[in-house]
Amino acid sequence: MKYVYFFGGDNTEGKASLRDLLGGKGANLAEMARMGIPVPPGFTIIADVCSIYRSNNKSYPEEIKAQVGEVLERLEKIFGAKFGNAENPLLVSVRSGARVSMPGMMDTILNLGLNDASVCGLAKQTGDERFAYQSYQRLIEMYGNVTMGIDRSTLEEVISRRKREKGITLDIELTVEDLKEIVDGLKAKIKEVTSSEFPQDTEQQLWEAISAVFESWNTPRAVDYRNINKIPNDWGTAVNVQAMVFGNMGSDSGTGVLFSRNPGTGEKGLFGEFLLNAQGEDVVAGTRTPQNIKELARALPECYQELDNISYKLEQHFMDMQDIEFTIQKGKLWILQTRIGKRTAQAAIKIAVDMTEERLIQRTQALQRIDPGQIEQVLHATLDPSAQKEVIARGLPASPGTASGKILFDPDEVVELSKENGDFILVRAETSADDVRGINAAQGVLTTRGGVTSHAAVVARGMGRCCIVGCSDIHIDWGKEQFVASNRIFTKGDIITLDGSTGEVLVGKVPTIPPQLGGEFAELMVWEDLTKRLGVMANADNAADAKLARSFGAEGIGLCRTEHMFFQADRIDHFRKVILAEGKEEKEEALAGILPLQKVDFSDIFREMEGLPVTIRLLDPPLHEFLPSPYDKEQLESLANRLNMPFRRLEEKVLQLREFNPMLGNRGCRLGITSPEVYKTQVRAIMEAAYELIGQGVSVFPEIMLPLIAHVEELKLLKELVLDTCERVRQERQATETIYRLGVMIELPRAALIADELAKLVDFFSFGTNDLTQTTFGISRDDGGAFLPLYLEKGIFTSDPFASLDETGVAQLIKMGFDRGRKANPELKVGICGEHGGEPKSIKFFHQVGLDYVSCSPYRVPVARLAASQAALRKVA
Amino acid sequence: MKYVYFFGGDNTEGKASLRDLLGGKGANLAEMARMGIPVPPGFTIIADVCSIYRSNNKSYPEEIKAQVGEVLERLEKIFGAKFGNAENPLLVSVRSGARVSMPGMMDTILNLGLNDASVCGLAKQTGDERFAYQSYQRLIEMYGNVTMGIDRSTLEEVISRRKREKGITLDIELTVEDLKEIVDGLKAKIKEVTSSEFPQDTEQQLWEAISAVFESWNTPRAVDYRNINKIPNDWGTAVNVQAMVFGNMGSDSGTGVLFSRNPGTGEKGLFGEFLLNAQGEDVVAGTRTPQNIKELARALPECYQELDNISYKLEQHFMDMQDIEFTIQKGKLWILQTRIGKRTAQAAIKIAVDMTEERLIQRTQALQRIDPGQIEQVLHATLDPSAQKEVIARGLPASPGTASGKILFDPDEVVELSKENGDFILVRAETSADDVRGINAAQGVLTTRGGVTSHAAVVARGMGRCCIVGCSDIHIDWGKEQFVASNRIFTKGDIITLDGSTGEVLVGKVPTIPPQLGGEFAELMVWEDLTKRLGVMANADNAADAKLARSFGAEGIGLCRTEHMFFQADRIDHFRKVILAEGKEEKEEALAGILPLQKVDFSDIFREMEGLPVTIRLLDPPLHEFLPSPYDKEQLESLANRLNMPFRRLEEKVLQLREFNPMLGNRGCRLGITSPEVYKTQVRAIMEAAYELIGQGVSVFPEIMLPLIAHVEELKLLKELVLDTCERVRQERQATETIYRLGVMIELPRAALIADELAKLVDFFSFGTNDLTQTTFGISRDDGGAFLPLYLEKGIFTSDPFASLDETGVAQLIKMGFDRGRKANPELKVGICGEHGGEPKSIKFFHQVGLDYVSCSPYRVPVARLAASQAALRKVA
Repeated sequence: MKYVYFFGGDNTEGKASLRDLLGGKGANLAEMARMGIPVPPGFTIIADVCSIYRSNNKSYPEEIKAQVGEVLERLEKIFGAKFGNAENPLLVSVRSGARVSMPGMMDTILNLGLNDASVCGLAKQTGDERFAYQSYQRLIEMYGNVTMGIDRSTLEEVISRRKREKGITLDIELTVEDLKEIVDGLKAKIKEVTSSEFPQDTEQQLWEAISAVFESWNTPRAVDYRNINKIPNDWGTAVNVQAMVFGNMGSDSGTGVLFSRNPGTGEKGLFGEFLLNAQGEDVVAGTRTPQNIKELARALPECYQELDNISYKLEQHFMDMQDIEFTIQKGKLWILQTRIGKRTAQAAIKIAVDMTEERLIQRTQALQRIDPGQIEQVLHATLDPSAQKEVIARGLPASPGTASGKILFDPDEVVELSKENGDFILVRAETSADDVRGINAAQGVLTTRGGVTSHAAVVARGMGRCCIVGCSDIHIDWGKEQFVASNRIFTKGDIITLDGSTGEVLVGKVPTIPPQLGGEFAELMVWEDLTKRLGVMANADNAADAKLARSFGAEGIGLCRTEHMFFQADRIDHFRKVILAEGKEEKEEALAGILPLQKVDFSDIFREMEGLPVTIRLLDPPLHEFLPSPYDKEQLESLANRLNMPFRRLEEKVLQLREFNPMLGNRGCRLGITSPEVYKTQVRAIMEAAYELIGQGVSVFPEIMLPLIAHVEELKLLKELVLDTCERVRQERQATETIYRLGVMIELPRAALIADELAKLVDFFSFGTNDLTQTTFGISRDDGGAFLPLYLEKGIFTSDPFASLDETGVAQLIKMGFDRGRKANPELKVGICGEHGGEPKSIKFFHQVGLDYVSCSPYRVPVARLAASQAALRKVA
Repeated sequence: MKYVYFFGGDNTEGKASLRDLLGGKGANLAEMARMGIPVPPGFTIIADVCSIYRSNNKSYPEEIKAQVGEVLERLEKIFGAKFGNAENPLLVSVRSGARVSMPGMMDTILNLGLNDASVCGLAKQTGDERFAYQSYQRLIEMYGNVTMGIDRSTLEEVISRRKREKGITLDIELTVEDLKEIVDGLKAKIKEVTSSEFPQDTEQQLWEAISAVFESWNTPRAVDYRNINKIPNDWGTAVNVQAMVFGNMGSDSGTGVLFSRNPGTGEKGLFGEFLLNAQGEDVVAGTRTPQNIKELARALPECYQELDNISYKLEQHFMDMQDIEFTIQKGKLWILQTRIGKRTAQAAIKIAVDMTEERLIQRTQALQRIDPGQIEQVLHATLDPSAQKEVIARGLPASPGTASGKILFDPDEVVELSKENGDFILVRAETSADDVRGINAAQGVLTTRGGVTSHAAVVARGMGRCCIVGCSDIHIDWGKEQFVASNRIFTKGDIITLDGSTGEVLVGKVPTIPPQLGGEFAELMVWEDLTKRLGVMANADNAADAKLARSFGAEGIGLCRTEHMFFQADRIDHFRKVILAEGKEEKEEALAGILPLQKVDFSDIFREMEGLPVTIRLLDPPLHEFLPSPYDKEQLESLANRLNMPFRRLEEKVLQLREFNPMLGNRGCRLGITSPEVYKTQVRAIMEAAYELIGQGVSVFPEIMLPLIAHVEELKLLKELVLDTCERVRQERQATETIYRLGVMIELPRAALIADELAKLVDFFSFGTNDLTQTTFGISRDDGGAFLPLYLEKGIFTSDPFASLDETGVAQLIKMGFDRGRKANPELKVGICGEHGGEPKSIKFFHQVGLDYVSCSPYRVPVARLAASQAALRKVA
């Protein structure tokens, strides 16, 4: 059985494809060695040994020792040095390397092979006693911590004490004598804590270090990490033992990190930084400022040229932008690691498109390279990275973009003041339908409660407003109109900035840079169209949003919510009259005032979406959402005055409409049945607008959608209402064509269960996954804040079911609804319009089920397009 | 093709088993004729003719005329009279008769065969001119209305006018001359309205009457009735033509109605009333007071004897209590109709048991004879039927029984005053958890809002309190603590009576009679045990209810809600401390005060249910239900004082706990995860109580039930909590046995969908159909009042899904949950504990699915037992 794989030059035994055996790091090192790239030679102990070691009572198979001995000899031969030799010691590092990266989860030990004797040999060999003792100090510190289990702080205290004694603060100020004292001090501390000596036997050092790495596979944090990331616990980690190289051996030595292209913009050319006569730690410590990689061309031109070549070669080989670590030891370049580099969304797009043009990758690969979750970044202005920033609180990033403005706590005040001038940030505990106009008028919204699918988040996202929710770091004093954060008081009118992509709340107005939707973005959209099968529509409630969505590639409106139209200042009181009317006549009279306004709403949207379908959902929320709270006497009085209505009657009506559980109350299609006049008016407005535009030569495709259907009889009744009204308008307009389609939202479990009955009566289904998730789980997204964070923390839910579709439960109902619906009506168009319509993982599921389209908020349209494209490609693969 | 079946004496062609062909009435008439019972002879035109007539452009098959002619001749021979003959006319009636009874839905015409000539013949034949013209008048009136489509009121006006002219009010005061005038007037009115004459051709009369009956099958109200009652429209009605007999031909004539046993008590012996020299209408008109049927033995002893014999014979033949109509014409007894008699629950039980003992029917038949819906009647005291009653309002009968007491509008006042003395009726708009103690302390509850499954209804039913809900007839003035009903003002302290079986609200204290749970009731319970397969458990939250349930035959407690325990006066503040505690220690300290109290609760119930399982649901409602409303400053202040807590902190906490949709909020098992201390305390109380009783030799079977599970990880976490706590108690008590079982409520759609995952981890499932219905439909039962009544009225829902299980939607989830659960764990016990557990139709479904048990409120236990028994028998049949 072969347990050990050598890498370095022509004798390399591993390769990239042996990742499962050698781990990611080992496989890549072997691959580079095979390619003739100078990696410090070494060997990998395969991951299987991890399990053998554990199941074998922490001991190793007999053969392994011999195999390690054999490859160690090869290493010694290459370097002309001997491991453990006092005169000319070979030093090695021991590192973990699992099949997939688990950054920072497992242990590393450097400089193995040093002891009290060989440290002198190293000093002599390098002519640098300081370097030798520094290396030894570092070994003892790491070894004591990783292998012998001593707290890092306990060991660091030995060094700090010495510095305090000498009155110095920087490591570099320590003399060789200090270092020798420290080495002795560390050894003494180890003895004191563990009653064992730091081992002078380098063979023992090596094996105990290897064992420590294997053990680190099972630390609680590593196990947690794997459980969360669904990495099997039985994979185990490989161990890489590699010859040490040093960048701190003079001015012809150095160390650095580079990217093969700019990870911020995607531009071609080396991008990175380096330090001469330094080790990796020096870069991290920040005591010296690294130089731009371009400077290396002047300092060590041959090394720079070689790096440039290698970078090109690695990119060609791995067919992606590389993140490369290197060390130069006395003029000799060593590559320590290469991996695929992380990048911004903008860079990801440019690199993918560029590489396709370079014929390095294919379009299909390019499409799969980009993380849809990132795409949203490029659509919004971002905070200027070079600006000064002071973060005062952090919440959940609920709607991306940035916003600066004066703090206001009252949504009505936002509406009022924004009419004049200025930008405002609305700060609330949470929001409700009453706040919608305030959210619309504000630049951004900050709430102290709620999750990323709370009311504030959903509304803000729909409107493209920047939003941070659940920001419990700030404490509001409503009476004083102040909040406290980071021990500072912020009063109404103070300016703050929100970063909706990070959830950070910052002091003052932070400058921003505009989005860069370059040619690559447009290019990508064309490729998406060629690959994706799912249609991507937008949720948009007005012409501005519709226009935005269309510019992002939306193929229609999949959800136009009509309730926001009623909240507008010029009609909210009209609609309140409708709600408060006694008897049908009074109601119809009040509705007559709304009809022409609604007609203009629809007309504007239809015009913007010419040639594309516009799906309009008839009124959905419970009527009390349009009225003031029964406890808000002041607002009630003002409304009673405006409507010229006795206060008592208004109060009584408001109390009567109040509901214990509005989500499960008189809303959706139930309103269409209890207040048919409202639906009739809406349908009339839609159809009058449509026929008028058709008369003007505009092509219009209205789709009328009934919300919250639970029973086939509800649908029958309302279908009749819609058909009658449409037919009446058609006759009035003397039109010949019937131009609308009728659909239902499937957003209650029962609707999915009786999908066959419903499908026979309609042209389309649209799954409302927000409500469907709420009722399937029995969780209100507005109230989930009390336990959902804990559920996620404890891993009860691996993701928020309102953000990413629950593929165990809710998905069954969608599948059932789709299958039964399509079987009963093969012509049925089926889509989804919940929050999940813009979430990549959910989109993959919708593609697999076979839906026709997804619909999401405008800023999510590009995300959804890419995700839909990737889902289609994955299916082919 | 034979279209016409003769009945009467030996020549009878039909029989009871030909019901589909002849309709119920025709088949029974034929059967009686065959038995030798004197029914006026006649014939039946089969129901198929109804469809032929309709599909054949309202005309008849040729043969039918000949067949009718032939049987008419037979009739004439029997009576020695001729149809349409001027001297000695034969009169007939024409009546509908469908396969199942559709009372009052279709038309009838009497006295056909009279015209201007034969009315004189009849007068001569009978020597009673008044009788002849009265008969003629009635024919013209009915004929004009039914056959010629004239409004009944238009025709009645002719009679009224005559009475006004003569200054009289009663028909009986009309002279023969008046009657002749009226006959002329009616004929003139018919001519005026229809331009047609009342037909003198009796052949035409007969066929138009037959056609009218066939047409009446399709009147809108008949179609509606069939749709609601799911009677196929293509069945059609048969038509019965029968010789007329008259009870108003002197003192040796008469008419009456009798039951073969007492329909109120079930006692054997004729029960009924009669009038001499009268027709059926005279009994209805109420102008004369009928005599007890026993009196007939004195008046016409031979007829009485014959009636007694016939009654016995019919009972023996049809094997059930009969409701018989008879007419005596000049000393000759005729039976006009027999059918199965309606009866009270008490009578139904006695009759079924008696008939079994008489070996008339078998026990299985007896069990199927009783309507489970009625059973509840016999368990409660009822209003004394002989008492004076004044009804002031009507609401929905939500919980049976009766209650009298002083009106109070404040639940806390009920609690306070009931400590002293007196009975109270709590009057509310609707109720919430805050009112539970008030409901408990009251004799009865009256609400103006909500349906039969509203909070008030469910709680009252569970507690066996009489309750009327949705009583919109009363109008409350909260400020004055008054309500107005029937134009009268009722003030706090006034006494009213509720009849929970009818929904009537009455003035003052109406006397009652106690329930009579005779030996027959106990007998029936034994038979049920022998036949039913479903177990019947009870929902009971305290020892008193448990005792009651056990006395009604409950086989255990299927749902013990623990929240009501926390509402009790001696612990509500303790529990509030738990809710308001900062940090775990403070919380545990507060819980320590509750533990001994809960232990006693459980101990009492266990003792009462010795030897039977007791299923305890851990805390379910959201915590804010235990706190005052954030808007009720007064209560908040008083609580803050009692708890010695700053008002601000209390207010803040109450506001923080408030939820938009409590039904979908932090409740059920979510509390067990966010506040594990509460569940731990409950489990500890259960197990300590159990082990203590076991130590005393009491056998105890605790079953711990987790509510609102949606995800398998919730169950895993809480199972661990329960197991740990139980194991700890077991060790403390040094017990050896593990005595509890663990189960989950399946009350969310997702739980049903993942039932397989859940089943592997538990011993039992209990479907919570209330919540499951709420989430499957997306309807809150507390808010459904805004549209459910309209839904039922419009026939969108054929029944309230919270009262009778939705067999199209929710049933699918139950079936799915059961099948998947049982497949994953064949040992799984499965039951239901929602409101549907006591509803007969739903119980039938649960039996068919294969559940192990149902659980319902104590007063529903006998209902459920009987329904379960019937379901089992139905399966066998």
